[in-house]
Amino acid sequence: MFKIVSIPGDGIGPEVVASAIRVINTLARQHGLEITIEEHLFGGASYDVHGEMLTQETLEACRKCDAVLLGAVGGPKWENLPHEKKPEAALLGIRKELGLFANFRPAKVYDALVNASSLKPEILAGTDFMVIRELTGGIYFGEPRGYDDTRGWNTMVYEHYEVERIARLAFDAAMKRKKQLVSIDKANVLESSQFWRNIVHEVHKDFPEVELIDMYVDNAAMQIVRDPKQFDVIVTKNLFGDILSDISGMITGSLGMLPSASIGSSHALYEPIHGSAPDIAGQNKANPIATIASAAMMFEHSFCMKNVADEIYSAIEKTLASGFRTADIANPEDTIVSTTEMTDAIVANL
Amino acid sequence: MFKIVSIPGDGIGPEVVASAIRVINTLARQHGLEITIEEHLFGGASYDVHGEMLTQETLEACRKCDAVLLGAVGGPKWENLPHEKKPEAALLGIRKELGLFANFRPAKVYDALVNASSLKPEILAGTDFMVIRELTGGIYFGEPRGYDDTRGWNTMVYEHYEVERIARLAFDAAMKRKKQLVSIDKANVLESSQFWRNIVHEVHKDFPEVELIDMYVDNAAMQIVRDPKQFDVIVTKNLFGDILSDISGMITGSLGMLPSASIGSSHALYEPIHGSAPDIAGQNKANPIATIASAAMMFEHSFCMKNVADEIYSAIEKTLASGFRTADIANPEDTIVSTTEMTDAIVANL
Ligand SMILES: CC(C)[C@H](C(=O)O)[C@@H](O)C(=O)O
Ligand SMILES: CC(C)[C@H](C(=O)O)[C@@H](O)C(=O)O
Repeated sequence: MFKIVSIPGDGIGPEVVASAIRVINTLARQHGLEITIEEHLFGGASYDVHGEMLTQETLEACRKCDAVLLGAVGGPKWENLPHEKKPEAALLGIRKELGLFANFRPAKVYDALVNASSLKPEILAGTDFMVIRELTGGIYFGEPRGYDDTRGWNTMVYEHYEVERIARLAFDAAMKRKKQLVSIDKANVLESSQFWRNIVHEVHKDFPEVELIDMYVDNAAMQIVRDPKQFDVIVTKNLFGDILSDISGMITGSLGMLPSASIGSSHALYEPIHGSAPDIAGQNKANPIATIASAAMMFEHSFCMKNVADEIYSAIEKTLASGFRTADIANPEDTIVSTTEMTDAIVANL
Repeated sequence: MFKIVSIPGDGIGPEVVASAIRVINTLARQHGLEITIEEHLFGGASYDVHGEMLTQETLEACRKCDAVLLGAVGGPKWENLPHEKKPEAALLGIRKELGLFANFRPAKVYDALVNASSLKPEILAGTDFMVIRELTGGIYFGEPRGYDDTRGWNTMVYEHYEVERIARLAFDAAMKRKKQLVSIDKANVLESSQFWRNIVHEVHKDFPEVELIDMYVDNAAMQIVRDPKQFDVIVTKNLFGDILSDISGMITGSLGMLPSASIGSSHALYEPIHGSAPDIAGQNKANPIATIASAAMMFEHSFCMKNVADEIYSAIEKTLASGFRTADIANPEDTIVSTTEMTDAIVANL
């Protein structure tokens, strides 16, 4: 018996979460699983009701469930709020409060979409790696921080345990894949990066089978664009991960298709990496695949059912292979389907 | 009368600097300019003689000249020195000591090489933008910094005058181009970025003709890969600039061809963005074009002779168009020329 908290959020969030829930319910029925889904407010949707993006009530619900499914947050309506009231603050808040210290973002190219990227197909084909980003430390949360009239400051700081636990998790992930881990830092300039590097090498002793490669962040950004096939698992700090996971997503050519998992020692949150796309909200145009794939990551990581996750991925591949395209991934000659038509097709392929 | 200090440095540095000097001397003769060039030690080459990568003597010489031409520094021989003795430290030292607060890196695609990139030619063709990176502030130089057994820390800090002067310079550059400036930060998370953004907007009031666009660094990294033609001038902080200027270089497909200028209020240094490439050092194989193009930037920025700079760029284009290729930019069917053959051809085309 599993309990999911869904927080649809803003913009296209409610539509894509509804699609993922249809997939989850279908699989629950097929596999005889008892899955309950409880919806809560988050982001602008919460602010409009409670004057807060993230309420204690939503937070408590997230703490008590097995997994959180998030749509998207934010939109022009809430853009001019003070910093600490903004959607971004709520997002960082939920990560910190739930202790979601590891963000997993697969960069995998769907065969059917290999031509959608700005990269040449021969560079891209076969790309399949995982970016693991530290998510609750580093300069995102470091103190002191602030600005006045004369200066602005932030602190990039990592504690030993923070680096150690994400490194362990990354080596674990590498063991389940091709046993290659690229740790990305800027140790030639930053002491906090040298510290990161030292600990990653300490932890490496417990995983002698994994090949560990250190790479500077500037070079890594280039290498992802130059030859993405060289990577299997990447691990990096919060700020570098923000940048590198977005590049990794972009090169796959299907940013609207990429899921993510944010994982801690007792909680987990799944969400598409795309934003709330206010311009197409409520129009049944959004691509639900990223959120459906996020549900697949939920089955794998939170429910330990890799077989069910694989069923979702196959249904997505099959649906794409038979030509279904939402507007964001359509070529001029394609027929464009709606959010619900895409979801119908995926459900039918399950 | 101009005085250049050349610091060839390590690896392929001496070869590519020699090529650029031939170009400079040829142009001096053609235009009746009196240019003296004085060579000094830097990097490993200096360390092996003096036990220091950057001596006071070299620094003094750089302070007294009109422009510095740098080849490249570093190599495996000096990789295991303590942090403060490494080539990287010398590079940061010379930037700081000469007050070179602005790093200019053009990302321009040579027509003859539009197929060399990992990006599709139709995405790339026509790309021509300038990345301006703040070079003497931010987390590269911020205090406190360090690490011990339990934690590692760095400080990202900007003073008002540091942001203001780089913003002014960037708006100036935009005025000379298409009057579009993209300022890249992470103001949704970092106070030091919000500070940066506020000041850029203040300075914007003095340049009302320039269109100013704010972009988050994660989005910017994607946009450069997705649609590089949207950019004209980019300005960003030291750390983000390190990453973004490398991506910008990579997408042009000719990293071995890209020059840079590091400019302060009274000094300037020109160097290719590629490294010292120890594996091919001394073999007359290196591509001299990045260093020759750096000399072009020197004519433009330090000597205010844009016409001479343009002569260099035309000679490079002509040479490439007639099929000359060093190994790094050759296709399988091309005949490969040496460093000196490439230089001969460019000199002949001047
Ligand atoms: C919205 C923003 C705070 C967030 C981040 O920087 O972490 C986003 O870019 C992400 O990657 O999830
Ligand atoms: C070598 C290193 C210190 C340097 C930097 O990070 O600035 C390099 O990457 C560069 O971009 O010039």
